[in-house]
Amino acid sequence: MHSLNGKLFTAEEATVLHDIICNRRDVRGNRFLDRPVEDSVVQQLLDAAFHAPSVGFSQPWEFVLIKAPGIKQQVKESFMVENEKAAPVFETEKQATYTRLKLEGIMEAPLNIAVFYKPSPQPVLGQTSMDEAGLYSVVCAVQNLWLMARALNLGMGWVSILDAEKVKRILKAPENNKLVAYLCVGYTDGFYTQPELELLQWEKRKTRETTIFYESY
Amino acid sequence: MHSLNGKLFTAEEATVLHDIICNRRDVRGNRFLDRPVEDSVVQQLLDAAFHAPSVGFSQPWEFVLIKAPGIKQQVKESFMVENEKAAPVFETEKQATYTRLKLEGIMEAPLNIAVFYKPSPQPVLGQTSMDEAGLYSVVCAVQNLWLMARALNLGMGWVSILDAEKVKRILKAPENNKLVAYLCVGYTDGFYTQPELELLQWEKRKTRETTIFYESY
Repeated sequence: MHSLNGKLFTAEEATVLHDIICNRRDVRGNRFLDRPVEDSVVQQLLDAAFHAPSVGFSQPWEFVLIKAPGIKQQVKESFMVENEKAAPVFETEKQATYTRLKLEGIMEAPLNIAVFYKPSPQPVLGQTSMDEAGLYSVVCAVQNLWLMARALNLGMGWVSILDAEKVKRILKAPENNKLVAYLCVGYTDGFYTQPELELLQWEKRKTRETTIFYESY
Repeated sequence: MHSLNGKLFTAEEATVLHDIICNRRDVRGNRFLDRPVEDSVVQQLLDAAFHAPSVGFSQPWEFVLIKAPGIKQQVKESFMVENEKAAPVFETEKQATYTRLKLEGIMEAPLNIAVFYKPSPQPVLGQTSMDEAGLYSVVCAVQNLWLMARALNLGMGWVSILDAEKVKRILKAPENNKLVAYLCVGYTDGFYTQPELELLQWEKRKTRETTIFYESY
């Protein structure tokens, strides 16, 4: 029926993807440079997001690009409230480390992107049994954007220590939309060679043996 | 403190990522070849998944690799029940198209991968305000795996027309685990140059104007 001539990739090209995936980092405020992100670069990031898979080709994503310090400040305040609540949740020996960590870059990153899920008013092919598939499509778009940022040597951090309802109000988001991700994007002074929480020994990398099962559990 | 010597990528390498992202497709049973996926290739796919971002470096994913026809057949039966329920949900003129579509490749794909979210028994850094961040980490792993499959010229389809609780029972998954994705993986006879649902005019590609907002809604 239709063209099955989609591009075939070489082993070298697969290695490029592997390297981008393994070098991607969650970048926080202590690493961002005070250098604007060019509009053409922002378009490349969004283009990657728009080519994410989506259930029933529903593309249920919306992106709010934020540069205004006044708006960022309001989001930062929600982070501060939530972060204050978070510290006591951890074991005593981890609390000191927790409070020392820089966990966001809302003010430092020149560009913030709030990513929303907008549910379809019509039924969506593939979403009739597992409604979460819509949300998951939006997360796939975020991951595409993150990888493209890394390939363009831009840092990105995902801030999840936020009150989603407060952020919705700050951004005047429609009632039905759901905040999926709040991203901080900008040039950096470098990328860690390993995840920061691994370097800090906050958590260990899991082994294949504990995460892969065969045929069933 | 630690090495900031993470690799910098060239514009050509960013273009490779762009091409992989834009050529990724949801591949169904009518395209899979009856050719096993080599173990070394499966390890490359899982390696991509294991390097996904995860909230608090929690890596809350588990993967069940399925090749046994008896298990696949039970999952396929869940698909058939759910798919039967789905068709009448769509507008009359779309129902005929819906029933003609091949929406999964459970039996045809040599490898199925069930991907689960395993909640952490301890509090997770970054997950204290938005609990969904754990699930989203698993989705990021799926998207990494999907892109790596495409880079290795392997087809992958995400089957969401399933009863997640039934699939959990078939795979003897722990009570607390949540099924996030059921993936069909294998070599194919080609890749469409555009998403299949776009070619079939089931849905149109959205425009930037309707999905990007500035500073707030």
